[in-house]
Amino acid sequence: MSMNQSKIFHPFKSQLELETGKIGSNANCWDRKLSEMTEIYDQENINNQLDISGNTIVYRVYEHELPYEKGHLIPVTTILYPGRVGNQFFMTKGHYHENRGTAEVYLILNGEGVLTMQTEDGQHQEIEFSTEDLLYIPPFWAHRMVNTSISDPLIFYGIYPADAGHDYQTIVETGFKKKVIYNPDTKRNFSII
Amino acid sequence: MSMNQSKIFHPFKSQLELETGKIGSNANCWDRKLSEMTEIYDQENINNQLDISGNTIVYRVYEHELPYEKGHLIPVTTILYPGRVGNQFFMTKGHYHENRGTAEVYLILNGEGVLTMQTEDGQHQEIEFSTEDLLYIPPFWAHRMVNTSISDPLIFYGIYPADAGHDYQTIVETGFKKKVIYNPDTKRNFSII
Repeated sequence: MSMNQSKIFHPFKSQLELETGKIGSNANCWDRKLSEMTEIYDQENINNQLDISGNTIVYRVYEHELPYEKGHLIPVTTILYPGRVGNQFFMTKGHYHENRGTAEVYLILNGEGVLTMQTEDGQHQEIEFSTEDLLYIPPFWAHRMVNTSISDPLIFYGIYPADAGHDYQTIVETGFKKKVIYNPDTKRNFSII
Repeated sequence: MSMNQSKIFHPFKSQLELETGKIGSNANCWDRKLSEMTEIYDQENINNQLDISGNTIVYRVYEHELPYEKGHLIPVTTILYPGRVGNQFFMTKGHYHENRGTAEVYLILNGEGVLTMQTEDGQHQEIEFSTEDLLYIPPFWAHRMVNTSISDPLIFYGIYPADAGHDYQTIVETGFKKKVIYNPDTKRNFSII
């Protein structure tokens, strides 16, 4: 990236409500509905799902409008609602970065859950977290957030490089190695299997 | 960066206390003392400074221990204490990134102040901020944080690319175009001159 006076990008200020995750200005807001991500749930859970419509919002994203260009960083907040599809918790779709060699950092503003991660060479790692945890996703790790709370939204603030890109398709094809499922027989209400 | 199984970096979790800015694990903590940054204050203010010793801590930094390599992102919190050197508020040393084409993002966890910025081609911008503001420092902008509160620490959480590097020397030589000075005659207690 070379400096170019006519194109130089100017600093700005926005607002991020720590309690709600809402980003106030310069941000796009979009919702991910269940109907857009049925392929990531087990088919039997989708088939037996009588009480949730496809229009149910699984998560809401606030993302700053910025150039998707090398050198920029994208601030984004996600509100992942509590809920389940059968015994599977509401979760993000999950992705690798297209540009595999790029990291991402999450700060948990509210809630609890599990971050499932894996690499293309077969490694996997699952991290349980709660409010005020900082999660580091290094280069090469696909990542998915799972909200394990019965009642509370999971709200997290993330930063990723603007040229990272999102590869959802690889995860749709392979799935994650580990699942986080509802298990009322455990103290924490879930199992990682 | 190419994938290398033996060198792949593993995910981790840490804690970030939103109220204090303290990062709990995997973090280095270091203090910037007044004696290390006298060159950024006006000489007359330094000369007349009778009540602050050089050992006074101006700010404390918690920074994650991570490779300073392309692809990684560094999470860092800064606690910039309230105080003045003459009519100049306590502030960070201020720097360009060595790798000029890299951004930085700040989230204000507590406090208020002014972010002064400038480019090498002569542009400048100053942004007043307070708690829950999100500040975007695009590529090519030198940046310095100033705590304008009389009584409260300014606590902010930042992310920058691990290969950004810090060029303090250029700012030591040129200074910033605008200063933020204590001015009890104004409602907000400061002026930008």
